[in-house]
Amino acid sequence: MNFCSDNVTGASPEIIRALDAASRGALAAYGDDEITERLRRRFSEVFERDVAVFPVATGTAANSLALATLTPPYGVVYGHRDAHIHVDECGAPEFFTGGAKLVALDGWHGKIAPEDLDSVVAVGGKGVVHHSQPASVSLTQASEAGTVYKMDEIAAIAEICRRHGLALHMDGARFANAVVSLNRSPADLTWRSGVDVLSFGATKNGALAAEAVVFFDKTKAGDFAFRRKRGGHLFSKMRFLSAQLDAYLQDELWLRNARHANAMASRLADGLAALPGATLRHPVEANEVFVELPEPVIRGLIADGFRFYRWTSDTSLCVRLVTAFDTEAAAAEALLAAAERHCCRAADATRR
Amino acid sequence: MNFCSDNVTGASPEIIRALDAASRGALAAYGDDEITERLRRRFSEVFERDVAVFPVATGTAANSLALATLTPPYGVVYGHRDAHIHVDECGAPEFFTGGAKLVALDGWHGKIAPEDLDSVVAVGGKGVVHHSQPASVSLTQASEAGTVYKMDEIAAIAEICRRHGLALHMDGARFANAVVSLNRSPADLTWRSGVDVLSFGATKNGALAAEAVVFFDKTKAGDFAFRRKRGGHLFSKMRFLSAQLDAYLQDELWLRNARHANAMASRLADGLAALPGATLRHPVEANEVFVELPEPVIRGLIADGFRFYRWTSDTSLCVRLVTAFDTEAAAAEALLAAAERHCCRAADATRR
Amino acid sequence: MNFCSDNVTGASPEIIRALDAASRGALAAYGDDEITERLRRRFSEVFERDVAVFPVATGTAANSLALATLTPPYGVVYGHRDAHIHVDECGAPEFFTGGAKLVALDGWHGKIAPEDLDSVVAVGGKGVVHHSQPASVSLTQASEAGTVYKMDEIAAIAEICRRHGLALHMDGARFANAVVSLNRSPADLTWRSGVDVLSFGATKNGALAAEAVVFFDKTKAGDFAFRRKRGGHLFSKMRFLSAQLDAYLQDELWLRNARHANAMASRLADGLAALPGATLRHPVEANEVFVELPEPVIRGLIADGFRFYRWTSDTSLCVRLVTAFDTEAAAAEALLAAAERHCCRAADATRR
Amino acid sequence: MNFCSDNVTGASPEIIRALDAASRGALAAYGDDEITERLRRRFSEVFERDVAVFPVATGTAANSLALATLTPPYGVVYGHRDAHIHVDECGAPEFFTGGAKLVALDGWHGKIAPEDLDSVVAVGGKGVVHHSQPASVSLTQASEAGTVYKMDEIAAIAEICRRHGLALHMDGARFANAVVSLNRSPADLTWRSGVDVLSFGATKNGALAAEAVVFFDKTKAGDFAFRRKRGGHLFSKMRFLSAQLDAYLQDELWLRNARHANAMASRLADGLAALPGATLRHPVEANEVFVELPEPVIRGLIADGFRFYRWTSDTSLCVRLVTAFDTEAAAAEALLAAAERHCCRAADATRR
Repeated sequence: MNFCSDNVTGASPEIIRALDAASRGALAAYGDDEITERLRRRFSEVFERDVAVFPVATGTAANSLALATLTPPYGVVYGHRDAHIHVDECGAPEFFTGGAKLVALDGWHGKIAPEDLDSVVAVGGKGVVHHSQPASVSLTQASEAGTVYKMDEIAAIAEICRRHGLALHMDGARFANAVVSLNRSPADLTWRSGVDVLSFGATKNGALAAEAVVFFDKTKAGDFAFRRKRGGHLFSKMRFLSAQLDAYLQDELWLRNARHANAMASRLADGLAALPGATLRHPVEANEVFVELPEPVIRGLIADGFRFYRWTSDTSLCVRLVTAFDTEAAAAEALLAAAERHCCRAADATRR
Repeated sequence: MNFCSDNVTGASPEIIRALDAASRGALAAYGDDEITERLRRRFSEVFERDVAVFPVATGTAANSLALATLTPPYGVVYGHRDAHIHVDECGAPEFFTGGAKLVALDGWHGKIAPEDLDSVVAVGGKGVVHHSQPASVSLTQASEAGTVYKMDEIAAIAEICRRHGLALHMDGARFANAVVSLNRSPADLTWRSGVDVLSFGATKNGALAAEAVVFFDKTKAGDFAFRRKRGGHLFSKMRFLSAQLDAYLQDELWLRNARHANAMASRLADGLAALPGATLRHPVEANEVFVELPEPVIRGLIADGFRFYRWTSDTSLCVRLVTAFDTEAAAAEALLAAAERHCCRAADATRR
Repeated sequence: MNFCSDNVTGASPEIIRALDAASRGALAAYGDDEITERLRRRFSEVFERDVAVFPVATGTAANSLALATLTPPYGVVYGHRDAHIHVDECGAPEFFTGGAKLVALDGWHGKIAPEDLDSVVAVGGKGVVHHSQPASVSLTQASEAGTVYKMDEIAAIAEICRRHGLALHMDGARFANAVVSLNRSPADLTWRSGVDVLSFGATKNGALAAEAVVFFDKTKAGDFAFRRKRGGHLFSKMRFLSAQLDAYLQDELWLRNARHANAMASRLADGLAALPGATLRHPVEANEVFVELPEPVIRGLIADGFRFYRWTSDTSLCVRLVTAFDTEAAAAEALLAAAERHCCRAADATRR
Repeated sequence: MNFCSDNVTGASPEIIRALDAASRGALAAYGDDEITERLRRRFSEVFERDVAVFPVATGTAANSLALATLTPPYGVVYGHRDAHIHVDECGAPEFFTGGAKLVALDGWHGKIAPEDLDSVVAVGGKGVVHHSQPASVSLTQASEAGTVYKMDEIAAIAEICRRHGLALHMDGARFANAVVSLNRSPADLTWRSGVDVLSFGATKNGALAAEAVVFFDKTKAGDFAFRRKRGGHLFSKMRFLSAQLDAYLQDELWLRNARHANAMASRLADGLAALPGATLRHPVEANEVFVELPEPVIRGLIADGFRFYRWTSDTSLCVRLVTAFDTEAAAAEALLAAAERHCCRAADATRR
C-alpha cells in the first residue's frame, strides 16, 4: 500500500491496449502518422480551440521546452518556491533556456499570490541591461501542496502577466486533478483565463510516459519543434506517445482517473482530520494529503507497511499521502483504520 | 510495403507483452525498481562485464548525453560526415555539450578511416587555447551506409583515441544488426576493442522507444545521471523503459530481430544486384540497401506502391531500402519481382 | 561632484603612464609577453604564494569565468541576495556555467551568515539526481552594503564549504578597500582563510578596465584558459591588461587608492551621522555610505548638483554615496556642509 | 623585426593620448557618457547612415555576440574553412549562440564562392526539424589569406542570403585594410552591398583593445545589449573603449594606419616575388603576404632574427608575413635584402 507518489503507479489498461493496437504495421515516423493527427483533433476538441500540440515523454521535458520557447537566455521565469521546475528538475529549465534565471516566490499553500508577483516583477528591472529580464510566469496546477488555483486566481495572475509583457505557463502535471476538482472546463482553466502554454500531464494519471505541450495560440509555438528535436524529445515512433494520449483523452479516461484519485484523497483527508492530534496542513483539493500526525501514529503506519514520505525531512511530523487512479478504496480504508488504531494506542499510553 | 526506414515499424509483441506485465502494481520511481535492477544484471551478462546502464527513450538523447559526458563545452567530437549526430539531430550534441564542435570526416561507405582520423586530430591544436580541444570520437555501428566496422577497424580507431587522449563513443542505433552481421560477441565489438561508451539502440529493432547508454568502465559514467535528469530524460516510471529493454534482451529477441532484418536486406541486395543496370553503392552488411537503379525501375516501384527514399535528393537514381524485424519475406520478394518486371519493360522499350 | 559609483571615475595617472610605456614595440600576443610575466611574479609576491593569474577586462567576466570553473552546469552557487553576480550581471554566471542555479541567501549588512549557509546547503540534496547540486559559494569583499567580512567570518564560511565539498569564490571588485579596512594581508584574507579563487578588482579603484582571476592552488585553475578564450576574454594585446594591473600593484598604488577612498567614506559617514534625522543603514567599512536622510536634505543635495542614487527606489529616503581613489576631500566637505545647511533649513521650517 | 602578426604591435600614439584625455573626471558609466555619444555620431558619419554601435574589447567577442544575435541555438553559420570564427576562437560562436553549428566551406584564397554557398545552403534542410537551420553567413574582410572580397562578390553572396533568408555578418578585424585596398567607401562595402552586421576591428590596426559591432539596420540589433552584458563585455568605464575608437576614426587615422600596413605588404610581396624560387600563394591585397620560399632562405631569415610563422606547420615552405601600422619601411627593406642574400647563397651552393 504505497502512497509515496502518483509516479509509483503502473498504467491504465486502456492505455496499454492502445499501445498494443498501435504496435502493428508501418506508419510514418516523427508524428506524420494518423494517430498523432487524430490526437491533434482530440486536443482541439477538449480545449474548444485549434491548438498546437507537441507530445513528449516527461514532465520535465514538457516544462523546460515550453519555458525555453517563452524565455530568452537572459530572461527570468517567476514561479513558486516549491515548484517542480525550481526544486525537482536538476536545473532543466536553466539548461533548456540557455541559462535563464528562476526567481522563486513565496505563497501560501503552494500558490503564488498575484500581489506578490506584481511587486516582484515591478522591481525586476525590465529594459535595464544589468538585470535578467522578466519574461514568463509558471503556475503549477494542481500545486505541489495539493491545492488548486481558482479561475479568478489564474485570471488575476494572467492580468499581471499581460501588464508586464510576460508569458504565462501552466505546469499541469496534475491538470486532470485540478479540472475535476474545480469542475470547470479545460478551456476555462487555461486560455480563457489567460494561460499561453500548458504542460498537460498524463504520466501521473494513468499513462506510461506521456505529456503534451499545448500552445493555445498556434502562432506562439515558435521554434518549439526545433527545440524538441534538439533536446532529444522527438520520438521517431511518435505513434506510441500519441496512442497513450489519445486513449487518455478518449471517453474521458483522464477525468475518470483523476476523479477517483481525488476522491481517495478526500476520503483520507476526512478520515485523518477527524483523528485527535491530526491537522491538515493544506486544503485537500486534488490527490495529495499533507497531514500532521502524532509520531506514534506515523511510526505505527510505517510498521504496518504503509509507504509514504515525511515532508520534507526524516523527522518531520507532517506526512504526504498521494493517491492515484489505481488507489484501491480498501487501501485507503485500511490506512484510516490503522491510523485510528495507532491514535487510540497513543492515547491509552498517554493516559496510563 | 514500406522500406523507408526501420522507424516506420511498430513493436515486437514480446515487448508489448512486457509492458502489459509491467503495468500493474506499485513500483519505486526513477529506476529504483526491480525491473530496472534486472535489466542492469542482464546488460552485464550480455557484455560480460559489470557495466553502468542508463535507459533513455531516443537515440538522439542517448548520443547527446553520452557525448556530453565525454566532451567539454570547448571540446571537439570527431565523426563521419554522414553521422546521425552531425546531420540528423538538429544540433543536439552541440546543445547537450554546451557548444562543442563536431568535426566531420570523410570516409568510404560511411566509415571513418583510421589514418584520416589520425591526421586530422594531429593538427587539432591540443593544448592550444585558440582551438576547440580534441575530446572524443563517435563511430556509427552499423553505419549510415549500411556497412559495419570490423573488430580490427574499431581497434585501430581506439588506438588512435588512446594515443591522443580521446574518448570513444559508439552510436549503436543499429548495434544488433552489426553484431549479427559480424558474428562477434557484444563485448568483442565494444570494450574489448576499446569503446568507452555505447548508445545501445532498441527502438529501430522492435522496441517502442528505448535505448540504453552503456558505460563499460562504471567509474567513467561521471555525471551522466545528473545530465540525464536535467535533459528531461529520466523517466519517473522507469519500469516502462526497462521492461522494453529487458524483453528485448531476453531469449535473444534483439539478435533474432536483427538477423531477420539483415537477411531481408541481403535478399533484396542479391536480387537487385542481379538486375541489368543496377549497382549496389555500398556493401550490404546490415539492414540497409543502397542501390542505383534505372529511372523507369524506380518510377515503376513507386507506382506499384512501394515506399522508400531516393538518396539523398528527389532526382537521385540511388534508392535506400531499409528492412526491419517485421519485414515480411513476401514483401521483399514482391519488390524484387516488381523490379525485375520494370527492368524487362525498360529493356523492351529500349530495344524497340 | 559625483558620488553615484566608483565606476564613474577615470583612471590613475600611473596606470595611464604604464599604458603609454607599454604601447611601443613588438611583444608576443595573448600573454606570452614580459609584462604579463612580470605581473605573474608580482601577484605571487602580493599573495605570498605561487598563484595562477588570469587578467580580464570586466568584473562580470572575472566572476562568471571563475564560477564556471568551479561549478558544473547542474550545480548551485550560493551567494548573498544582493550580490552583483545575482542581481547585476544579467545572468552572466548562468551563461558561463551553462545553466547553473544561483541560490540567494539573506543576511545582515550584505553578508552571508555562516549558519544560514550551513542550513541551506544541508537541505540542498547533494547526490540526489533531482536537484541542482551544491557546488560553490561566492562572497563579496567588500560587500554590496559597504561592509567587510572579517577573517574569522571568512574562515567560518570556508569551513562549511570544506565540510560540504564546495569551492569558495570571492568577488573582490572592491578587494583593495577590504584589505585596507581590515588591515590584514591579502594572503590572510584569501587563501589562508580558505578562499579558492579571487576576482581581484582594479577597475573601480584606478584602472581603466582590468581585473584578475587568481587561483591560489594553481592546479585548480583547470580549464580556465579555454573558458576565457571561448568567452572572448583573452586579449590579443594582453600587455595592455597586464600593464594596468602591474602599475596598480606597483608601489602599493592599489592600497593607497583604496585607503583614500575609504577615508573619504569615513569622513562622509561621520559627518552625516551627526546630523539630526540621519541614520547609517550599514556600518561604513569600505568606500560606500548608505545613509537615511530627511527628504528635504536629499532634495537639497540634488538641487545643489550632488549626484548619487537613492537606494533602491526613486522614493527611498536612503541614499548611497560611493567614494573613490579620486574623490576630492573638498567635494566631501562640500557635501557635508550642504547637508548640514539643508538640515538646518528643514529644522527651521519645522519650527516655524 | 617581428612579422608574426598585427597583434604583436603596440598602439598608435593618438589613441594613447585619447585615453589620457579621457582619464580625468567623472562620466556616466556603461556608455551613457559623452565620448560614447560622440562615437555613435562618428560611426553614423563614416557609414553614411544612422547605425547602432556597440564597442567591445576583442574580435572574438564582436564576432560571437554578432552571430548570436543573428543565429538561434539550432541555427547554422556558414563561413570559410579558414575563418577565425571557425578555427581560432575555441568555439566562442558555439558558446554565445547556445550551440549553433558552424558549417565550413572551401574556397580559393580564403574566400567563399557564391555558387558553393548557394549549393550548400540549398541542401541545408531549411524547415526540416532534423537539421540545424540555415541562419547566417560570415565573411572575413580582409580574409585570412590576405585577400579582399570585391563589392560585387559581397553583393552576390548577399543576394544568396536574401534568397534563403540568411543574415550576413562581416568579420572586419582587418576592415580598414580592405577599405583602403578596394578604395571604396565603408558604406559601399557593407550595407550597400547587403551586409547586415559588421565586426569593425581596431585592435590590429592601432588600438589597444577595441572593436565595434555595427548594425546597419538599428532595429535588427535586437537583444545585443543584453547579450553583451551577459557575456561580460559591457565595460563599466565605457569611455575607455569609446575613446580608442573615437581617436581611431578621427582624421582618418584608421585609414592612414591601414594604408601604411598595406603598402608595406605590397613592398614585401613585390620584392619577394622577384626572387628565384619564390611564389606568392595568394594575391596580396591587404597586409598579409603568404609566400613560398626555398628552405635555406627561410632558415636564413630566421637566423637573422626575423620573426614570422611557417604556414601552417613547422616544416612548411610557405611563410606568412604580416605588416601593420607601425611596420618600419627599413624593416621591410632589411627583410628583402636578407632574403635576396640568402637566395644568392643558395644558388651559389647549388652551382658548386
